[in-house]
Amino acid sequence: MTEAGVLLQEEVLISTKDVSLENIRAAREVVYRILKPTPTMKYPLLDAELGARVWLKHENHLPTGAFKVRGGLNFMHHFAAAATHSGVITATRGNHGQSVALAAQLHSIPATIVVPFGNNPEKNEAMKAYGARLVEYGRDFDEARVEVARLAETENLRFIHSSNEPHLLNGVGTYALEIIEALAGRGEQADAVFVPIGMGSGLCGVITAFRVLSPQTKIYGVQAETAPSYYLSWKAGKVINTETADTFADGVATRAPSEFALEIIQNGVDEIVLVSDDEIRDAIRLLWRTTHNLVEGAGAAATAAAIKLRERLKGQNVVSVVSGGNLDSATVSQIFNKQ
Amino acid sequence: MTEAGVLLQEEVLISTKDVSLENIRAAREVVYRILKPTPTMKYPLLDAELGARVWLKHENHLPTGAFKVRGGLNFMHHFAAAATHSGVITATRGNHGQSVALAAQLHSIPATIVVPFGNNPEKNEAMKAYGARLVEYGRDFDEARVEVARLAETENLRFIHSSNEPHLLNGVGTYALEIIEALAGRGEQADAVFVPIGMGSGLCGVITAFRVLSPQTKIYGVQAETAPSYYLSWKAGKVINTETADTFADGVATRAPSEFALEIIQNGVDEIVLVSDDEIRDAIRLLWRTTHNLVEGAGAAATAAAIKLRERLKGQNVVSVVSGGNLDSATVSQIFNKQ
Repeated sequence: MTEAGVLLQEEVLISTKDVSLENIRAAREVVYRILKPTPTMKYPLLDAELGARVWLKHENHLPTGAFKVRGGLNFMHHFAAAATHSGVITATRGNHGQSVALAAQLHSIPATIVVPFGNNPEKNEAMKAYGARLVEYGRDFDEARVEVARLAETENLRFIHSSNEPHLLNGVGTYALEIIEALAGRGEQADAVFVPIGMGSGLCGVITAFRVLSPQTKIYGVQAETAPSYYLSWKAGKVINTETADTFADGVATRAPSEFALEIIQNGVDEIVLVSDDEIRDAIRLLWRTTHNLVEGAGAAATAAAIKLRERLKGQNVVSVVSGGNLDSATVSQIFNKQ
Repeated sequence: MTEAGVLLQEEVLISTKDVSLENIRAAREVVYRILKPTPTMKYPLLDAELGARVWLKHENHLPTGAFKVRGGLNFMHHFAAAATHSGVITATRGNHGQSVALAAQLHSIPATIVVPFGNNPEKNEAMKAYGARLVEYGRDFDEARVEVARLAETENLRFIHSSNEPHLLNGVGTYALEIIEALAGRGEQADAVFVPIGMGSGLCGVITAFRVLSPQTKIYGVQAETAPSYYLSWKAGKVINTETADTFADGVATRAPSEFALEIIQNGVDEIVLVSDDEIRDAIRLLWRTTHNLVEGAGAAATAAAIKLRERLKGQNVVSVVSGGNLDSATVSQIFNKQ
């Protein structure tokens, strides 16, 4: 069990029943105090490329450049109401940390973000810009979590796991409502939706909303071939960690699935698709060329999976969740020089 | 006088009085049938970089990746109502053409776009994807216009100039209303607004809305040092063409100002600022690093100008219009390799 697991046990017991359409709808009220809905858009060049009607859900258009901020806002709203701790703390390499930092700043709650040494400096700057205290510790994510545990105890900070938090999942689920409503507004229904899996919060939100409101939609989770922990866990029906998670797409580079998220995924996903880093890079370039959205690896992974399954998607309404756009400049350089 | 000028005389007489706040408000009804307002967003890292409160107007988030589609939709709505021609035609290298093509397709009006040989293939593909007939003709923009004149006459097509069209300017002006309202919604007013000048439609829209609704805002137009036709014309008080317009930022690469747009600009702009191509490229990289929006040269020119004037903008509310995001992949590669 990880330090995150140990920490979690100090908190109130949670149930997957706390992640619900009703709670997603309530979260929307909270989220929309700060954010506007993101666009769900279709592009003729992308449609032509896939031979399908492809709707991009533009979570990259959010102020933090990633979907997680929806969860952070909902979590912090409820946490602010509780106020049992001196602040919040989390371990992250990027998007989750920005989400926590922004939401904490709005509520004037001190936020501490622990990152491993050598974490991308652009991501560190982005988290600090939202007023968070940034602590560098350890060689990797798991070592960083040790320091999180220590600081949480000594400073009475509430640890925020990136998926074992119903308020996060309900907040994130608000984008799923927006997808369903955007298509309905044009008289359409999704035949398939593709969602990248990092710690699984996005996929859990999509499952929770779609399984009730759009049950005919096939739901695909997407992971990198070199970081297939949820894929393996889904196949096995139990949590399976991987030794490594060697993908450039840091938003999906997770080794240790959350049992909480896995339970929801297990009951709701139709299939988990694996894509290679090369396929993800191709999808980044394709999305740039056809839509002029430059997105991060996780943000392109869903589209990479849709391309992989294009034969079975012909002519369908396909939703691809562009989870975020936070590529660092060095990676942009690499990707556009491999053409 | 250019072929465009000759063609224009076949059309009804226009007056700068036709560009008005009232008509912008009417255009908004038309534009919002298809588009949603774009975000006006602030980013802590960008604020820190400029020492000001910097609001980006994200016209790069529109489905065509550029502001011009607002004008195209408004123009085509009125043209569809008139229906005196067999179709529409224009000469363009990109964003104006996508705007015309999309709006024409929505009204089932045949659209012809003439581009010079060697025009960027990605931009050509984007225009064709919206159903336009693409005609390649001539070595440059001015030669392409000769073919526009010929086709317009022989095929009874309505030429659409990219700025001498009140309906275009009123449509484009809708983004100015959105800026004013977004800031007002947060209890703010703009101290300065920076707008890139291609053929001037964006700046005319901003002037028309701001001069009435936000008269205290200083309005800056922005051009490239190597394509300063509006700057020279503004200084001289009359249209001055330049021999060349050698900037990589094709959205601001214009040699021949529109007398119509110049009249509005002359009466409303506070200053026109020139920026170098290097400054524009720096601004593209800065916007990527601080906001994770990758934008085209014209889209970054306003921010480049704000950086140039940063000393006088300290602590102010500064709006930078990100007019578009349509960079071709080869240019992305160049820009991120010069770091």
